[in-house]
Amino acid sequence: MNGADSLCDTLLANGVDVCFANPGTSEMHFVAALDRKPQMRCVLGLFEGGVTGAADGYARMADRPAATLLHCGPGLANGLANLHNARRARTPMINVVGDHATYHLVHDAPLTSDIESLARPMSQWVGRAERAQDVAPHAAEAYEAAMATPGVSTLILPADAAWGDVAPETQPVVAGPIVKHAVNSAAINAAAAALRSGRRTRLLLGGLALRADALEIAGRIAAATGARLLAPMSNGRIERGAGRVPLERVPYPIDISLVALADIECLVTVGASVPVAFFAYPGKPGRLIPDGAEVVEMGAPGDDLLAALEALADELGATGPAILAKAPEAQNVTDGALTVENLNILLAGAIPENAIVCDESVSSGRQFFAMSQGAPRHDYLQLTGGAIGIGIPLAAGAAVACPDRKVLLLQADGSGMYTCQALWTHARENLDVVTVIFSNRAYAILQGEMRNVGVNHFGENARRMLDIDRPALDWVSLSRGMGVEAGRAETVSAFRKLLTEALSRRGPFLIEAVL
Amino acid sequence: MNGADSLCDTLLANGVDVCFANPGTSEMHFVAALDRKPQMRCVLGLFEGGVTGAADGYARMADRPAATLLHCGPGLANGLANLHNARRARTPMINVVGDHATYHLVHDAPLTSDIESLARPMSQWVGRAERAQDVAPHAAEAYEAAMATPGVSTLILPADAAWGDVAPETQPVVAGPIVKHAVNSAAINAAAAALRSGRRTRLLLGGLALRADALEIAGRIAAATGARLLAPMSNGRIERGAGRVPLERVPYPIDISLVALADIECLVTVGASVPVAFFAYPGKPGRLIPDGAEVVEMGAPGDDLLAALEALADELGATGPAILAKAPEAQNVTDGALTVENLNILLAGAIPENAIVCDESVSSGRQFFAMSQGAPRHDYLQLTGGAIGIGIPLAAGAAVACPDRKVLLLQADGSGMYTCQALWTHARENLDVVTVIFSNRAYAILQGEMRNVGVNHFGENARRMLDIDRPALDWVSLSRGMGVEAGRAETVSAFRKLLTEALSRRGPFLIEAVL
Repeated sequence: MNGADSLCDTLLANGVDVCFANPGTSEMHFVAALDRKPQMRCVLGLFEGGVTGAADGYARMADRPAATLLHCGPGLANGLANLHNARRARTPMINVVGDHATYHLVHDAPLTSDIESLARPMSQWVGRAERAQDVAPHAAEAYEAAMATPGVSTLILPADAAWGDVAPETQPVVAGPIVKHAVNSAAINAAAAALRSGRRTRLLLGGLALRADALEIAGRIAAATGARLLAPMSNGRIERGAGRVPLERVPYPIDISLVALADIECLVTVGASVPVAFFAYPGKPGRLIPDGAEVVEMGAPGDDLLAALEALADELGATGPAILAKAPEAQNVTDGALTVENLNILLAGAIPENAIVCDESVSSGRQFFAMSQGAPRHDYLQLTGGAIGIGIPLAAGAAVACPDRKVLLLQADGSGMYTCQALWTHARENLDVVTVIFSNRAYAILQGEMRNVGVNHFGENARRMLDIDRPALDWVSLSRGMGVEAGRAETVSAFRKLLTEALSRRGPFLIEAVL
Repeated sequence: MNGADSLCDTLLANGVDVCFANPGTSEMHFVAALDRKPQMRCVLGLFEGGVTGAADGYARMADRPAATLLHCGPGLANGLANLHNARRARTPMINVVGDHATYHLVHDAPLTSDIESLARPMSQWVGRAERAQDVAPHAAEAYEAAMATPGVSTLILPADAAWGDVAPETQPVVAGPIVKHAVNSAAINAAAAALRSGRRTRLLLGGLALRADALEIAGRIAAATGARLLAPMSNGRIERGAGRVPLERVPYPIDISLVALADIECLVTVGASVPVAFFAYPGKPGRLIPDGAEVVEMGAPGDDLLAALEALADELGATGPAILAKAPEAQNVTDGALTVENLNILLAGAIPENAIVCDESVSSGRQFFAMSQGAPRHDYLQLTGGAIGIGIPLAAGAAVACPDRKVLLLQADGSGMYTCQALWTHARENLDVVTVIFSNRAYAILQGEMRNVGVNHFGENARRMLDIDRPALDWVSLSRGMGVEAGRAETVSAFRKLLTEALSRRGPFLIEAVL
């Protein structure tokens, strides 16, 4: 029995039984140990951004971490962008990053790099198991750290710690129970006072306060006090749809968000931060709420937000029913060319009951959230950290976590290219994901931002950096190249037909919606 | 005139006139400035690994840096793996990484991250221009640092430094001349003494000592002293082929390399380090030369290695001719299924005169280097840092630097998937690159390494992590999806036909060689 075996045992003992992997030579003993543990499900990604994005999607749905297996500093580096998104989504995750044997580092062999420096910006916990006997306790610590806030833990596993012997009777280390911190009553009382004050108050809900149980309580509070419910711009997961409590989201475009939040006199935050502009713009504010607005913080992201909301509702006597989202009238879409508008209507109208919707539609899908408020119940997973290239992996991970649920992925074309390799994982694992590519053949969001900085006529260099036509990407060909069946639609009727077919069967399918 | 304009001016004034780019919102003012400078060639990559890998390939051939344009921490992160390779190749490069406006960082907006921590492991120079007037001097410093060693410089450009005004008369900052450090005469005398000693001596040449002019001198030294010439395992660029001085390379597999270097009594290093094992293996040494061997260091990578070799040849009176590589007898390949062996023979025999060969064939192409020793003159560019996913971008950058030369890329399939998006840049820029995919549908190198750790029978988990079949990648479909014409060959005759056609025309083409 070696350090790698004890790592597998400790992961399994803590309920971590999925490993998204892209291994290399320094991880071969860990691969061999995984091979001795058929109860661990190993899911290969052809690129590490697909690995970490999938681990994010998995944990958002499973509420427990997956492990990742990454190869040295460069392998971790390739996964960092989606670790950044996971960090912003506060997703539990345990990265296992292989490194050279401890005594080999002195040679500065080609793959040597400063893994800790790479890991820290995107991890809330970083550790290195120097010896085989350290591996299991470090892994348990990584698990506890991942579950506590929650967040990303990165465990560096030198090859000699993996292959080194541990005593044959070595037991896995089981982490203690994860206890959520209770929100103090002063904060709850302050929130109650704000909600009773008669001022225009919003309840900004983040993290686990966006699940159906918490939202139901928040909805009762809203009904009792007249406060409006608000979600941050970007969220790991919202449970929503007809029969659930609806809420608005902070808009992305700076001018629209300033208008939307201009009337706030008091903001009660529940596991969320005061909304800020995604980017700075000359002469525009960074905080999106009025300077004079009072802010009451009722709980940090890792706190027991559900209990805090219950206590607040009790305090307010908010026992009456919440206002729930209702199924909308079906919208009639006339046939013709696909547009952003009719595509969003068609998608919002087609969400299957109990689906998981992953949204990396970027600028094209901005209308989708409001349109799908009353769609059949679904989970809604977003790009959280602005690091594009999450969609295809995120959908993969969600599908691994929830094999009985349909995953619908809304994917912008420019962003989708960053981690297109994850389509192969959709095929390899026969995941039940329907991917819709919003194919506008441009970095449309950046074209808008160029206009924001006052450039309305693009020269050759700007066009060559903001268009992704010439040549146009052929997503059907790309998708088939990775083993995922695909079709292209340029009209409403063609799209509707493809979407209906794709949703009515199991397994991965990609639709290129040409805009 | 703003900070972004002054950045463009300073880059251009220092001869940096190519920018490989993948921009985002925080870089819009830089994009607008680039748009005002048509003399700057902007080359879009659809993923940052393609951007940094292309900048590496460009500078290996141009011997001067390209700029890259990367978006915040995650954009840099996506480019880090190929920056790691560039660092190991000692390639000059200037990364421009956009960040939030300085005053916006306090808000911890979603894209905020510790860019310095991410940049340092792969950069020898990291700087941040806090104000618009700092941008030009920082850019000149980045240029000087990139050219000095040479290596990777990373300049962080906050949005407000880009959009902030500078005085209209602001001039670009031109870096001083780059002076190479002279190797001291004591080291040259020590090397001469070693070469005269009668012991079995190798001359290990790295960096610029692998160019034709330096190799010619080294070849004379070898002819005069009986020393053998050796290159490191992984090199940025070797000028080689018929009529040039040939040399061996340190082999990758540990057991083979130990045998190959076992007879060394003295090693003279010229801009190179003592060879070490790529990975550690239990019970095997890290240094690949015998413990008792003497090592004489004649020059560090940034030194004036050419002058040092000239001085050494003078000291030794090595005026006689070097032994040059000769064109080999054409090897006859009988038709039949493609194999690693006959594919390497076909490729070595097909290298066009003055071609640039980029090699990320990993395990499949190990025989190619020896086979192509006497091929028509060519440059040979390798994966240097072990961070796979360099080939397609590297070929792109080399083709941008040398538009009149044919680029032949030997690409393993597993590695190629990491940055397959760069094929689109081949198409967009109509680059003269022929890509040959060694399609073995496995991480073959890892299967070998698993056997090295004693696992000969793979279970389900190991198979699922080391095979990349089920489904097989269809590279022809992938390539066409990104606008690059492609064909598949399963036999010698089909491959020969496709390769002949591809080499006889201009523009990108991909051949999937099914093994």
